[in-house]
Amino acid sequence: MIRIALDAMGGDHAPQAEIEGSILALTTLPATFRIVLVGKADVIEAELARHPEIDRSRLGVCHAPDVIAMDEKPLSAVRKKPQSSISIGLGLVKAGEAEAFVSAGNTGAVLAASTILLGLHDGVERATVGTLFPTSDVPCLVVDGGANVDCTSRELLGFAYLGTVYTRDVLGRPSPKVGLLNIGEEEEKGNATAKEAHQLLKTAPNLNYIGNIEGRDIIAGHSKLGQLDVVVCDGFVGNIVLKFYESVARLILSLVRKKAPDVLERKDIREVFRHLDYSEYGGAPLLGVKGVSIICHGSSSPNAFKNAVRVATTAVEHDLSGRIGAEFARREAANTA
Amino acid sequence: MIRIALDAMGGDHAPQAEIEGSILALTTLPATFRIVLVGKADVIEAELARHPEIDRSRLGVCHAPDVIAMDEKPLSAVRKKPQSSISIGLGLVKAGEAEAFVSAGNTGAVLAASTILLGLHDGVERATVGTLFPTSDVPCLVVDGGANVDCTSRELLGFAYLGTVYTRDVLGRPSPKVGLLNIGEEEEKGNATAKEAHQLLKTAPNLNYIGNIEGRDIIAGHSKLGQLDVVVCDGFVGNIVLKFYESVARLILSLVRKKAPDVLERKDIREVFRHLDYSEYGGAPLLGVKGVSIICHGSSSPNAFKNAVRVATTAVEHDLSGRIGAEFARREAANTA
Repeated sequence: MIRIALDAMGGDHAPQAEIEGSILALTTLPATFRIVLVGKADVIEAELARHPEIDRSRLGVCHAPDVIAMDEKPLSAVRKKPQSSISIGLGLVKAGEAEAFVSAGNTGAVLAASTILLGLHDGVERATVGTLFPTSDVPCLVVDGGANVDCTSRELLGFAYLGTVYTRDVLGRPSPKVGLLNIGEEEEKGNATAKEAHQLLKTAPNLNYIGNIEGRDIIAGHSKLGQLDVVVCDGFVGNIVLKFYESVARLILSLVRKKAPDVLERKDIREVFRHLDYSEYGGAPLLGVKGVSIICHGSSSPNAFKNAVRVATTAVEHDLSGRIGAEFARREAANTA
Repeated sequence: MIRIALDAMGGDHAPQAEIEGSILALTTLPATFRIVLVGKADVIEAELARHPEIDRSRLGVCHAPDVIAMDEKPLSAVRKKPQSSISIGLGLVKAGEAEAFVSAGNTGAVLAASTILLGLHDGVERATVGTLFPTSDVPCLVVDGGANVDCTSRELLGFAYLGTVYTRDVLGRPSPKVGLLNIGEEEEKGNATAKEAHQLLKTAPNLNYIGNIEGRDIIAGHSKLGQLDVVVCDGFVGNIVLKFYESVARLILSLVRKKAPDVLERKDIREVFRHLDYSEYGGAPLLGVKGVSIICHGSSSPNAFKNAVRVATTAVEHDLSGRIGAEFARREAANTA
């Protein structure tokens, strides 16, 4: 049995989108899967009452009286509101009453609460968000996707390992290729942190590091140096590029709508835009914490929540957290040997 | 008479693309405009011989024996090669024998040589590259577009003024709105430099600063806070976002080609992709130096060079350099008053 604790109060369209997404998810998941909606019980029950068809034995409710707003300072909000849907939901994972947590709430707060409540695996200096970017080929994992704004080169090195474990052990890519997001492929390129990180990555054991890559390589899904599975950058750059990407599909849609609206009626063209639609990729795993914690976009649709639940169950089934623990234990052992 | 010194050795397709672009430019410019091709005279003349139709009274050649390669370290290359096409071309501007310089060569070297040979206007701490990004509306100027990798908050403030002068006095937008590229609109968002820069920008006089903006706002051409004319960021982020953007149109083209190739035959759809094509926007002005220096993409096509020459002549006609000098003199006077 896999139980997902889902923050029902997190997103911009809470709790409707969360609840509709949960219902969608349960119809596609085997009968052994359960979802626990975490949040204000009266609000959730009122919304659930509109869906009498639901099998309530698979969809529970766990009351959490508080909500952390999007604009609250993450760390102080987590400290001030121990009864928030984020903290209560993560508490279920910590207590072994759920195998994963999914939230579209304040990203910084989910990161902070996951780090505090679940703890980090030994050897992990900082947890990171792994965001999948659609490419012309298989999607590419960007670490950090926006959670950690100022990063040291050592933290970037840690992100490379975390991303490697996820793409290898959960996404099933044999030897994931890692690139450092930079402004040129040459060694001497980049800001101070990127230059340092390149040197650390180059000599890091058990890492398939292909070198510096450029902004254009993310989407190509490869650089001159080969296919690309993991892109390492700090969360400042990651967040900006991610949001920029989201807006590009919207720009092209608006241009096509203006110049050739009939084209949008076509199924093949709609497929192109679906390929670029983030909600198809679901949530982003928080990598490095002891447990599975999945972060969704604030504006997630029911479909996005359904896909985030799928990301969560896949991470649980492939023992993401255990594999990260084992990888970092190996690194620590090698360092002290 | 306006004379443009054009680095014939700079780009990936030199000197063919440069020479074809010059010919294209001269056919569209009034008879009073001249172009001087700077570089290895024998190489240039050999290429020119293939175009006997050219009016050589409007297209001169200035010999420069050296070339700075794309992978050379900018500052040391500029010092070691005073006879490079970049330094000789900028020397023509310095000596008053040309009104502007255009190059698709090593960006860092053009920045360094322009700063050293032309000098900075009083009060300008660092010159910046202003790159126009296509949006669904009018293009948006990103400063820095990739030349200055590590920037202080004070330098970012300077970029805001430089971008304002260019969009106002050359592009003709009455009161350009300036945004700081960040990971959220709230005051407390961002890395250390962004937080500091936001505080400086907020209180800066004679600047239409609308606040922090996000990656998605660049392309929308506006944020929740209104239309957007100038986006301020360091060159590390600017370069990554720029190259990322370039690749997006390519991704969508490849997806459409795969799923619905016939659509690409349509004129209206080709217009959409042309809207996203950088070469339509020509070169990026280097802002802050005493003179007009235009940086082109290394892979510039003849059409891109034609447009870069247009950008150069427009900057000369609107006295870009003089207006930047006046703006910063006013700032300096206000600061010491």
